[in-house]
Amino acid sequence: MDLKEISKIINSDFDGISFNITKMNTLRDASKSEISFVANSKYIKEIESSNAGAIIVDKQTKEFVPNGCVALVVDNPYLEMATLSKYFAPPIEDDSLAEPVIGEGSSVSPKAEIAKGAVIGKNCTIMAHVYIGANAVVGDNTVIYPSVTIYRDCKVGSDCIIHANTTIGSDGFGFATNKLGEHRKIYQNGNVVVEDNVEIGSSTTIDRAVFGTTLIKYGVRIDNLVQVGHNCIIGEHSVLVAQSGISGSTTMGRNVVMGGQSATAGHLSIAPFTTMAARSGVTKSISQSGMTFAGFPLMEHKLWLKLQGKIARLIKQ
Amino acid sequence: MDLKEISKIINSDFDGISFNITKMNTLRDASKSEISFVANSKYIKEIESSNAGAIIVDKQTKEFVPNGCVALVVDNPYLEMATLSKYFAPPIEDDSLAEPVIGEGSSVSPKAEIAKGAVIGKNCTIMAHVYIGANAVVGDNTVIYPSVTIYRDCKVGSDCIIHANTTIGSDGFGFATNKLGEHRKIYQNGNVVVEDNVEIGSSTTIDRAVFGTTLIKYGVRIDNLVQVGHNCIIGEHSVLVAQSGISGSTTMGRNVVMGGQSATAGHLSIAPFTTMAARSGVTKSISQSGMTFAGFPLMEHKLWLKLQGKIARLIKQ
Amino acid sequence: MDLKEISKIINSDFDGISFNITKMNTLRDASKSEISFVANSKYIKEIESSNAGAIIVDKQTKEFVPNGCVALVVDNPYLEMATLSKYFAPPIEDDSLAEPVIGEGSSVSPKAEIAKGAVIGKNCTIMAHVYIGANAVVGDNTVIYPSVTIYRDCKVGSDCIIHANTTIGSDGFGFATNKLGEHRKIYQNGNVVVEDNVEIGSSTTIDRAVFGTTLIKYGVRIDNLVQVGHNCIIGEHSVLVAQSGISGSTTMGRNVVMGGQSATAGHLSIAPFTTMAARSGVTKSISQSGMTFAGFPLMEHKLWLKLQGKIARLIKQ
Repeated sequence: MDLKEISKIINSDFDGISFNITKMNTLRDASKSEISFVANSKYIKEIESSNAGAIIVDKQTKEFVPNGCVALVVDNPYLEMATLSKYFAPPIEDDSLAEPVIGEGSSVSPKAEIAKGAVIGKNCTIMAHVYIGANAVVGDNTVIYPSVTIYRDCKVGSDCIIHANTTIGSDGFGFATNKLGEHRKIYQNGNVVVEDNVEIGSSTTIDRAVFGTTLIKYGVRIDNLVQVGHNCIIGEHSVLVAQSGISGSTTMGRNVVMGGQSATAGHLSIAPFTTMAARSGVTKSISQSGMTFAGFPLMEHKLWLKLQGKIARLIKQ
Repeated sequence: MDLKEISKIINSDFDGISFNITKMNTLRDASKSEISFVANSKYIKEIESSNAGAIIVDKQTKEFVPNGCVALVVDNPYLEMATLSKYFAPPIEDDSLAEPVIGEGSSVSPKAEIAKGAVIGKNCTIMAHVYIGANAVVGDNTVIYPSVTIYRDCKVGSDCIIHANTTIGSDGFGFATNKLGEHRKIYQNGNVVVEDNVEIGSSTTIDRAVFGTTLIKYGVRIDNLVQVGHNCIIGEHSVLVAQSGISGSTTMGRNVVMGGQSATAGHLSIAPFTTMAARSGVTKSISQSGMTFAGFPLMEHKLWLKLQGKIARLIKQ
Repeated sequence: MDLKEISKIINSDFDGISFNITKMNTLRDASKSEISFVANSKYIKEIESSNAGAIIVDKQTKEFVPNGCVALVVDNPYLEMATLSKYFAPPIEDDSLAEPVIGEGSSVSPKAEIAKGAVIGKNCTIMAHVYIGANAVVGDNTVIYPSVTIYRDCKVGSDCIIHANTTIGSDGFGFATNKLGEHRKIYQNGNVVVEDNVEIGSSTTIDRAVFGTTLIKYGVRIDNLVQVGHNCIIGEHSVLVAQSGISGSTTMGRNVVMGGQSATAGHLSIAPFTTMAARSGVTKSISQSGMTFAGFPLMEHKLWLKLQGKIARLIKQ
C-alpha cells in the first residue's frame, strides 16, 4: 500500500516521496518497507534503533523520529493504527490461491473444509467439520478431531493431536478506544505456529498475533478450555491444565506448568521449569527458574501454605 | 394453547371460561393473552400491576390475584411452570417456514446450514460448518467464522464478527427441582439479540432468555471462552475479557469492563463505566458509576491493594 | 496382543510362556487376560488382590508380584505403560464396522457425520455438523445440537439434550514425563457414559477415561464451559454450574452442586447433597453429606462468611 494513501486513511499530512508499505509491524521488527507506530511514551527509546520505513506518532513524539524514517503525525496513534490495520488484513478466503495440497496417506473427511492455499502433510487424519484456512499448513501424522477450526496462515506441526471444537488462530482481543468509549478493531494480521509433537485438548482457544506469531513450541501439552492470548510464546514441554488462561504477549520458558484455572497477566516472562499451582494468578514476571508458586496475588507455594495456616487461626480467634 | 388445556397439564382446577394463551411470561411483561406464575413470595407485590391473563400460584397466593385474572392453583408453581414451558417450546426446526433469504453480496459456504425462516443480510461471510437456526436474523456485513451455532429466533446485527466455535442462543441453565431432588427442565423460550458492531471471540457461550431476550448491546467486545447467562443485558461498548462469566439476569450499563476470569452473581445491576479487575467476583449490585473493583468478595481496587499489603505482613509475622 | 511382543515394546526381559493380552487396565479391574502396572509404591498393596495376567513393575516391586502373574520389569513403569497404551488404542474410525443404525423417527441432518458402528435410537434429533464416532451409542428422544462431537465408543442415554459445540469423549489429559522433561502420551482407551435424562450445555468438555469409564449419571445438569476430567463419576441429579472444573478421577454422590467457576482437585470423593458455592476450590474429600462449602482452600460456608468479616476488619485497621 502506498504511503501517500496511508497518510490519507489516517488523516495525516504527508508531502514527501511516497513508497510502498508492505506491512504493519512493531518498532522492533519492522523493516524499511514496513510501517510502525508509537502509542505510548515508553516506546520512544525504541524509535532510534527501529528500521521502520515510517512511524505513526503524535506531535510530541515526532522529534524522536530520525532522518530517513517518515513520521506520520496524528492525534491518536493507537486509534489510527487500528484504522490502518483493516487495510492490511488479508481476505478471509482467497479464490486466487492454489488448490489445497493433501499429502500421501492422509485421510480428509469429505465433510471437512480445506481452503485454497492450504497444505496438509502425509498420513494426517482430518475429521468431519474441520476447517483449515487459506495458506494454513499442517505437518505429517497429525490428527485433527471434528469441528476444529484453524484460521488462515496458521501452522500446525507434525505428530500433533488437536481435539474437537478447538480454535487456532482466532483474532486476538485487540481494539483502540476513542474518547467516547467506542472501540475500533485492531485487525490481527499475525498468525499462530504450533510446533511438532503438541497435543491440544477440546474447546481450547489460541489467538493469532496482532503482528508476528503466537508460538506453541515443541512438545507442549494443552488441556481443555484453555485460553492463550495473542503473541504468547509457550515454551517446549510446557503444560497448561484445563481452564487456565495466558494473557497476551506473555512468554514462558520450557517445562512451565500452569495448574487448572490458573492465569497470567499479559506481557510477562516466566522462567523455565516454573510450576504454578491450580488457581494461581501471575501478575509479575518470574526470573528464577524451577520454583513453585500459588495464590493470587502470587507467592511461593510454601508461603501460601503458611498463609492458609494463619488464615485458619484468624477464623478461630 | 387453551387455558383449560393448560389447567389439565399442570393439574389445577379450572372451571371458568377458557381463552387462548399465546405465551408464558414474567408478571411484569405478560399481556392479557399470556400466562405468568408466582414461585416466590417476594413477587406477590408485582401481581397487582401485572396484565397477565392467568397466573400459576399456590394456595396462599391465590387471594392476591385480582378479578379479571385467572388464578391457577397448584402445590408447586415453579415446578408446574417448568412442566408447562415444554408445551410452549417451538420446534427446533420447522419445515413449514419459508426458505431462508440470503442478502445480495453475501457468501454462504455450502457446508454451512441455514435453517428455514432465517434471513441473512447483505455482504455477509458465513463460513463452513456454521449453523443458523429457524427464524434467526443476521444483519449486513457480518462475518461468522466456522462452527458458530446460532439457535433459532436469535438475532445478530450488522458489522459483527463472531469467531469460531461460539454458541449464541443455547438454553439458559433453568430447571425446577422437586422434593426428591429431581430436576425438570424449564424450556428457554426467549432468544438472544446481538446488536450492531459487536465482536465475539471463539468458544464463547451466550444463553437465550427463558422469557424475553438476552441482550448484547451496540459495540460490545467479548473475548474467548466467556459465559453470558440467560436474560443478561450487556451495555454498549462493554468489554468481557476471556473466561469471565456473567450469571443470569445481570444487567450492566455501558462501558463496563469485566477482567479475565472475573464473574458476577445473577440478578445484579452494574453501573456504567465500572471496571472489574481480573478474577473479581461480583456478588452485589454496583450503583455508583466509574469505579474500579477487585477481589472476591469484591472491594474497591485500592482497598484490595491495601489488603494484599496486610496479608503480606501477616505472612511475615 | 501377544505378551512376548509387549515385552519387546517396553524393553523388558520375558522368557515365560506367552499368552494373549486383550487390554490394559487398573490393578483393581484387570482380568487374567489383561495387563496392569505399578508406578507408585502406594499401589503395591493392591497387587496381591489383582487378577491381572501381567503387571509392569520396577525391579523393587517385582517381589510383590505373586506366582501366576507375569512381572514385566522395566526402569520406569509409568513411562512404559504410556508407551504400550498406544498399541491398545483402537483406530479413530474403522471402515470394517457395520453401517450406522438410525432408529425410527430420528432426524439426522445430512450435514451430520455418523461413523460406522454407531447406533442412534428412536425419535432423536441429530443436527448439522454433529459428529458421532465409531461404536458410539445414543438412546431414544435425545437432542444433539450442532457441532457436538461424541468420540468413538461413548454412550449417551435417552431423553438427553446436548448443546452446541460440546465435546464428549476427548482424550483425558494423560502423559508420562521422562527425565528430560519430555512427555509421552498415555492413550485414553476408556470411554464416557452419559446416562438418561441428562442435559449438558454448550462448549462443555467431558474427557474419556484412560481405562474404564467417565460416568455422568441419571438426571445430571451440566452448564456451559464446564470441564469434567477423565474417570470422574458425577452422581445422579448433580448440578455443575458454568465454568466449573472437575479434575480427573473425582467421584461425587447424588445431588452435589458445584457453583460457577468452582473446581475440585483430582482423586477426591464428595458426599451426596454437598453444595459448593461459586469459586469454591475443593482440595480434600468430603465425607459428610448435606453440607455447604465455600472458598479456596475450602471451608464451611458459614466459616467463610465469618472470615470475610475478619478480613473486612483487617482492612480497616
